[in-house]
Amino acid sequence: MARLLATTGVGPAVEQVAERVRADFVRWAAFDKTPRVASHSAVGVIELMPTSDGHRYGFKYVNGHPGNPARGLQTVTAFGALADVDSGYPVLLAEMTLLTAVRTAATSAVAARALARPGSTRHAMIGAGSQGEFQAWGMRTALGITDLAVFDPDPAAVAKLVAHLEPAGFTVAVASSAREAVAGADVVTTCTADKSRALVVPSGAVAPGTHLNAIGGDCPGKTELPVDLVTASSVFVEYEPQTRIEGEIQALPADSPVTELWQVLGGAHPGRRSAEEITLFDSVGFAIEDFSALCWLADAVRGTPWSTDLDLVADPADPKDLYGLLDAVRMPQGAGRG
Amino acid sequence: MARLLATTGVGPAVEQVAERVRADFVRWAAFDKTPRVASHSAVGVIELMPTSDGHRYGFKYVNGHPGNPARGLQTVTAFGALADVDSGYPVLLAEMTLLTAVRTAATSAVAARALARPGSTRHAMIGAGSQGEFQAWGMRTALGITDLAVFDPDPAAVAKLVAHLEPAGFTVAVASSAREAVAGADVVTTCTADKSRALVVPSGAVAPGTHLNAIGGDCPGKTELPVDLVTASSVFVEYEPQTRIEGEIQALPADSPVTELWQVLGGAHPGRRSAEEITLFDSVGFAIEDFSALCWLADAVRGTPWSTDLDLVADPADPKDLYGLLDAVRMPQGAGRG
Repeated sequence: MARLLATTGVGPAVEQVAERVRADFVRWAAFDKTPRVASHSAVGVIELMPTSDGHRYGFKYVNGHPGNPARGLQTVTAFGALADVDSGYPVLLAEMTLLTAVRTAATSAVAARALARPGSTRHAMIGAGSQGEFQAWGMRTALGITDLAVFDPDPAAVAKLVAHLEPAGFTVAVASSAREAVAGADVVTTCTADKSRALVVPSGAVAPGTHLNAIGGDCPGKTELPVDLVTASSVFVEYEPQTRIEGEIQALPADSPVTELWQVLGGAHPGRRSAEEITLFDSVGFAIEDFSALCWLADAVRGTPWSTDLDLVADPADPKDLYGLLDAVRMPQGAGRG
Repeated sequence: MARLLATTGVGPAVEQVAERVRADFVRWAAFDKTPRVASHSAVGVIELMPTSDGHRYGFKYVNGHPGNPARGLQTVTAFGALADVDSGYPVLLAEMTLLTAVRTAATSAVAARALARPGSTRHAMIGAGSQGEFQAWGMRTALGITDLAVFDPDPAAVAKLVAHLEPAGFTVAVASSAREAVAGADVVTTCTADKSRALVVPSGAVAPGTHLNAIGGDCPGKTELPVDLVTASSVFVEYEPQTRIEGEIQALPADSPVTELWQVLGGAHPGRRSAEEITLFDSVGFAIEDFSALCWLADAVRGTPWSTDLDLVADPADPKDLYGLLDAVRMPQGAGRG
């Protein structure tokens, strides 16, 4: 995955996945939509996220363990598979930690293109962790923005982000507070890993007309924005039943108004209605985005050295003779015992 | 998987997995129990079956496509993974088509050891498909039975089963009807792939005291036994909420009496109560059995040539520097485009 992305370029990869996500969101009704299946423990969560469009079936395995970085592990790791609905056979197994960062940035790009003010030129980012660079590429893909202000209390994380992005043509201003980063921004991305009701952006700091790309509030008990800022915004979500549980709107009444993004992309909802409106994409990540990314990947790796045939499906010549597979591999010296 | 099973021997593998299944069923309360997550299409189903004991998490991907054998494909294929609950990281990815056959036979063995009449010596099997030989090993493991009668309308399937089992020390009588196969049997296994309300055993043919090992009725609309035979039996199931939907008892009222097998294994229920009772293990396959099998496999392949390290988890040196993985693999000639 790293080699594919390094060679394709993160910008083109985000652009290509964004086109898949947009096209799949437009045909929203074609998909099986189920909430993720979560297994919670005291230290984190492991989830399965399946979906299908009737032709291909995809699922992602993903964990969320906020204590992992303190011991040198990723907060989030993921892998997933695509299968052929007609035969039920798996056709692709893939790393999805990097791919999830790309698809999240791609989905942010799709939303920003639909919701941010035309002529947006400044992007502020709160949080310079794993997702930071990918999100910067997301807004560059969506809106052409290379002018970035970043705030993160961890100077090493900020230095890492600057070192990655400036050689790629970004101009990065390092802010000493979230308020400073947000001042004058057209688009604000929040991507912190705080597992709590964090307030990473002061509500008064956000100017009218801002587009908020909130990707860090993504599980029960984890939000990033002050409630009055969420209430003052027009809220757009991926899949309302899931976002009510996991997103920024978990702090709001269950009937607070929201619009599903696919309705905007399909033309059923206008999206942004004025230059003064604050739009909020309350992103939690949805199975269809992973499906879109896996379908992109299946095409992207075909014929490249970055995919390998994996012997994962027992495939006897006679489908009723599963047991015969053992004869086929049995040691000639009779080491098999029946 | 085939090499591991050929070298271990199917009998010892079934025995070892049966011990894991029994031990995990005894600590039933320790597990997350969720119904499978199914995605149905016109031609089949794709399911995810997760569970966790708080230390390890496991899931299986499995399809069921009754039309597959007609085009040379398996009805059922499966793969799965184990993960560490503490970190959320996957630790084992495995083929599970063969392993499912082993765990199903192992679970049948656990049930038969608890429910069949002491001194059982004759096993009748209806259906000589993919699962047949494994089920024969299951009853040999549980009860020492090598005397087998088999009926299947497909003579080629029967010939395959005989060719596999006789060299391994089974005596196989080929019956010309289910009634003939069942006559004089102490244990009757039904393992057909009919996707309908099939009646593979005539109810009058089953003698008092028989143990019925019914593994083929395993999805909505698919049963194998006449209703009066099910009603006349003491019914034992894996996990009642799932078996009500998928098992033989789907044809019975929702409050028909059943006992979960773990209650018998743990001593809370007596199991068989008389030599005349007909006991029915209405097996549909449950996630905990796959978990038990995966845990067995993880130990069984350690240090053998049958496992391979798989680079499936993105693992940057700095957990906040996921993007840095791209630099690490970037082409020296500058093929990367950002």
